[in-house]
Amino acid sequence: MTSPDKIWTAGLVVIGDEILSGRTHDKNIAQVASWLQVQGIRLAEVRVVPDVQQRIVEAVNALRAANDYLFTTGGIGPTHDDITVDAVAEALGVPVVIHPEARALLERYYADKGGLNEGRLRMARVPDGSDLIPNRMSGAPGIRRGNVVLMAGVPHICAGMLDALTGKLEGGAPLISETIGCWIPESEVAHLLREVEEAHENCQIGSYPFFREGKVGANFVIRSTNRNVLQSAVDSLCDGLATSGFDFTPGGI
Amino acid sequence: MTSPDKIWTAGLVVIGDEILSGRTHDKNIAQVASWLQVQGIRLAEVRVVPDVQQRIVEAVNALRAANDYLFTTGGIGPTHDDITVDAVAEALGVPVVIHPEARALLERYYADKGGLNEGRLRMARVPDGSDLIPNRMSGAPGIRRGNVVLMAGVPHICAGMLDALTGKLEGGAPLISETIGCWIPESEVAHLLREVEEAHENCQIGSYPFFREGKVGANFVIRSTNRNVLQSAVDSLCDGLATSGFDFTPGGI
Repeated sequence: MTSPDKIWTAGLVVIGDEILSGRTHDKNIAQVASWLQVQGIRLAEVRVVPDVQQRIVEAVNALRAANDYLFTTGGIGPTHDDITVDAVAEALGVPVVIHPEARALLERYYADKGGLNEGRLRMARVPDGSDLIPNRMSGAPGIRRGNVVLMAGVPHICAGMLDALTGKLEGGAPLISETIGCWIPESEVAHLLREVEEAHENCQIGSYPFFREGKVGANFVIRSTNRNVLQSAVDSLCDGLATSGFDFTPGGI
Repeated sequence: MTSPDKIWTAGLVVIGDEILSGRTHDKNIAQVASWLQVQGIRLAEVRVVPDVQQRIVEAVNALRAANDYLFTTGGIGPTHDDITVDAVAEALGVPVVIHPEARALLERYYADKGGLNEGRLRMARVPDGSDLIPNRMSGAPGIRRGNVVLMAGVPHICAGMLDALTGKLEGGAPLISETIGCWIPESEVAHLLREVEEAHENCQIGSYPFFREGKVGANFVIRSTNRNVLQSAVDSLCDGLATSGFDFTPGGI
């Protein structure tokens, strides 16, 4: 039986020259991260790598050795630069096979769109032993093989695949958080933040400064898997801010 | 003398729990990537790591060993979770010192804002042997030590630091690109894309599908450091699209 205190972690490999060239702004890191939080799984590291098979293999192997789950986004489409399936199969040491159900799905999807061709059939290829993740948006499914999950790079298709996986991965207690906002420079309260964090085990405080409406401010985000610890840290921080004469906004600014 | 054909590369370490929790959407990957292209430097890999010193050290050392330059964003502010300077100093094997010019800058900046305190003085700490990168937005400077560059996580401050570095890093021929857009599924032309890429050495073609106005389409981005190769590949692709009866839009859709 898994310990109830176990912290489940995931790594994410974002695959694509378009991210590294700056042409495309990644939206998947944030949506995968937020979704994982709700599953009780912590995103521990992200690597963005180019469409080069050996680089994908290295990143996949490094992050799956260090984490409970490994996700990828990108590179599962029909074109020559879509090599994620080949790279993950190499990393896992299994052959690439045509998944019969994926092939049937694609045959139905393309029946009135000119039928299957070499490129479209690429999207039925999976690392041997994989299951499919439904994709209501377009024909091509996502792929899951044990703790390794391959998703589309197009953000709304990736979102649909995450939706299909909701509640299906074992996780731990979700990390919960509270935010306190202040219209002050974070440097005014650096000492207080450190004190409150150190006084509360299993609690992290992040400080996120901003400039808005011509003024500086910061949101302080307190995170813990334990609701009591979280509340105690929030109370200490609010007391400390009040004692120093700073107004604050529960929920953040 | 450096070969004119040398491809200069950079790694980027994005530091911050707020990115891995999904709370903050990273904007620095895209802006650093785009800026590097113009400097003739290719972004080869990005790693997003949490505010944990050992994890930052590992990422910094891995990416600086593999690349000509190493950039970091995030974790150079005044609070306890800002540990990038300590981690990079450890990675480089040098002590952390107070940079006198940074201290003077911060003293002037905070003169009418309550003066320096422990947190604010943290922003004058640098790995020994570093130079400062000007920051017109707020008092705290960025840091450069040889081929290692530490920048702010707040995107507009990071942008200002990139601006201050423009033209100051040695690079090679910039990667140039042309985009051709089509209102067709990319799977219709997967074979053509592969053929054109294989026929042109020193040329990559990326295919970026989209769904807009209820229709599918794709932009094909052809990249090369050589303008003649690029033009020849663009011509071949356009000829191939025309031969197949597909309309296309130079410049992309």
